[in-house]
Amino acid sequence: MLKDLVVQNRSYRRFYQEVAVDMDTLRELVDLARLSASGANRQPLKYLLSCEAERNALIFQHLAWAGYLVDWPGPVEGERPSAYILILGDTEISRSSGVDHGIAAQSILLGATEKGLGGCIIASIQREKLCEALGIDPRYEILLALALGKPKERVVVDPVGPEGDIKYWRDSEGVHHVPKRALDEIIVG
Amino acid sequence: MLKDLVVQNRSYRRFYQEVAVDMDTLRELVDLARLSASGANRQPLKYLLSCEAERNALIFQHLAWAGYLVDWPGPVEGERPSAYILILGDTEISRSSGVDHGIAAQSILLGATEKGLGGCIIASIQREKLCEALGIDPRYEILLALALGKPKERVVVDPVGPEGDIKYWRDSEGVHHVPKRALDEIIVG
Repeated sequence: MLKDLVVQNRSYRRFYQEVAVDMDTLRELVDLARLSASGANRQPLKYLLSCEAERNALIFQHLAWAGYLVDWPGPVEGERPSAYILILGDTEISRSSGVDHGIAAQSILLGATEKGLGGCIIASIQREKLCEALGIDPRYEILLALALGKPKERVVVDPVGPEGDIKYWRDSEGVHHVPKRALDEIIVG
Repeated sequence: MLKDLVVQNRSYRRFYQEVAVDMDTLRELVDLARLSASGANRQPLKYLLSCEAERNALIFQHLAWAGYLVDWPGPVEGERPSAYILILGDTEISRSSGVDHGIAAQSILLGATEKGLGGCIIASIQREKLCEALGIDPRYEILLALALGKPKERVVVDPVGPEGDIKYWRDSEGVHHVPKRALDEIIVG
């Protein structure tokens, strides 16, 4: 059932870094995005893959992690992602990618979940510096970074409390809690 | 396999209109979106559901269909969607929904595909007029319309030809062809 995949597909930020994710796996995931919908079928998205330690480290240092966990600067060495897929917008095809990268990210992460992996969509990126560090052609803009690996944390979905706070938080046992709005709150007509 | 669902999940624009999609089904689909990722977990998306003939007709007249099929004004009566999910952005929660609506749309359409349904993400909407016609509170902006129903057309994926044309087209037998870029073209590093 798709619902099982959707429920299992949480945003994971700590990984068994020693468990490799190979290039073939990343290509299979991008193929899911390739076959997904694209506004006016323009297909402006391009993908940069990384599964080697050096390139991973370079990408890692340009990302910001978990804004609400102010005392947590991100995963420590050993718990960092084993791979990344950077979703790029090819500005020579289209100035805007609409919501194509959201659609693509969801296909990729559901695919990763099915393979026993997990990940996190990261939009907080030092884009210019990362482009320069990776030598990315200026025709491409970095839209999203997908961090991938074998999850090393438990993430649970809770109902949003009466005070309406949607900030995720981590309990004393390291379990990551994500408050989600109720179905009846989000259906408005 | 998720890949089967992704391949089967094409953009359908002609439906067996007489096959109803009920409210419970729409709610199950929205629940998939509810449990999907949201930027900073803000969850600004709200949903308006429609599965009655009158409301469907009202939504239908505010949508534009298949820009590349210039001689086709959209599905005829009898082949129109049986239901719609309008994805709204709640501006009191966030001024921008980032790519949340792309993520949500993909969860919903994959879920619809699993149920033997299909649909189309429509962004070309007469937004102001539709808001007025449906009496939508001004705090919400219409982001996307998802047209849903039991597909009544065949859609095939072709490789993009050497001339690079990505426009979809319909052959003499009514089969809808969608040129998709090759994997090696979209992986750039």
